[in-house]
Amino acid sequence: MSDGAGKEIEQLIALMAKLPGLGPRSARRAVLTMIKKRRLLLDPLAQAMTEVAATARECVECGNIGTSDLCDICTSPKRDQTILCIVEDVSDLWAMERAQVFSGRYHVLGGVLSALDGIGPDELKLPKLETRVAQGQIKEAILALGATVDGQTTAHYLADRLEPLGITVTTLAQGVPVGGELDYLDDGTISAALRARKSL
Amino acid sequence: MSDGAGKEIEQLIALMAKLPGLGPRSARRAVLTMIKKRRLLLDPLAQAMTEVAATARECVECGNIGTSDLCDICTSPKRDQTILCIVEDVSDLWAMERAQVFSGRYHVLGGVLSALDGIGPDELKLPKLETRVAQGQIKEAILALGATVDGQTTAHYLADRLEPLGITVTTLAQGVPVGGELDYLDDGTISAALRARKSL
Repeated sequence: MSDGAGKEIEQLIALMAKLPGLGPRSARRAVLTMIKKRRLLLDPLAQAMTEVAATARECVECGNIGTSDLCDICTSPKRDQTILCIVEDVSDLWAMERAQVFSGRYHVLGGVLSALDGIGPDELKLPKLETRVAQGQIKEAILALGATVDGQTTAHYLADRLEPLGITVTTLAQGVPVGGELDYLDDGTISAALRARKSL
Repeated sequence: MSDGAGKEIEQLIALMAKLPGLGPRSARRAVLTMIKKRRLLLDPLAQAMTEVAATARECVECGNIGTSDLCDICTSPKRDQTILCIVEDVSDLWAMERAQVFSGRYHVLGGVLSALDGIGPDELKLPKLETRVAQGQIKEAILALGATVDGQTTAHYLADRLEPLGITVTTLAQGVPVGGELDYLDDGTISAALRARKSL
């Protein structure tokens, strides 16, 4: 289907439409906005994308995505090397970083165990994780995996693998989310929050 | 707010978040998807965007956005030079082209008259329109403007300006949209459809 905009522009629209959260209509709108705001959007975007395409890579240590072989977190002397936070995906790592409450380092698994999707331990970045733990600096591994069946299965599997290496394995607390109203919470969350109740 | 992803990637996320239809969260997701699908998305997108940034420009004749001084529509010998379709914006031109029912040429006004927004005739591309009509080839001008108050005001203003030049001025029909159910239509549309009723 032709827009009458020339093939370079239609190619750009087709590519933008493949991004998550965008469809053909919003991709057209985005591209039109870019072209109209050339100095503010199109030129800087083209440059930023070319730079990222040239430099973005996976950190060889933790699996984070950055612009050098070792990511900013792994090379920062300010980060605590004795605590390791294990996450499913890079997006989870970024979410933890935005919360600004964790000062240790990370390990990105690249997925969680899933019988349905056929993801077993060999599909996850476990050998590298065990190598890092075996180096002896890490004292605690925090399992920051989703509170889903697959996430919790993976957490238990990881605890079984990591505890024999002599480190403490902890997991994120489950309970009422901040700002949450009891009336709108599911039974499982209320039940978990009740079981993990604390004295004030 | 830092994601821990390196400043080039965060810069790209910040720019993507400025596009219409995307916010900080969906921009992060889009950039992460791009980086993971480097060959399929990031590399072609960077290249397409650089090409568009270098070549995209407004057609000097009609105001469409294309990749040369005269757009594909204005240079095509297949397009009828006697019919001109007048639209508010490039996105409207693209919408007309996707419908594949119009074989004439276009003129993009770049807006509609609006007392509220302070847009008068001087803000629209009227001199160029009158020059094109005065050249004598155009026999009919179709006003394909939105069925809004401003759109209709502009349509009447344009009819007053163009009819003295000796051409036929028409406008898109108003009525029940294809697939529309009466129950869900607003009063104005039903009223317009009734007034413009036709014999079967």
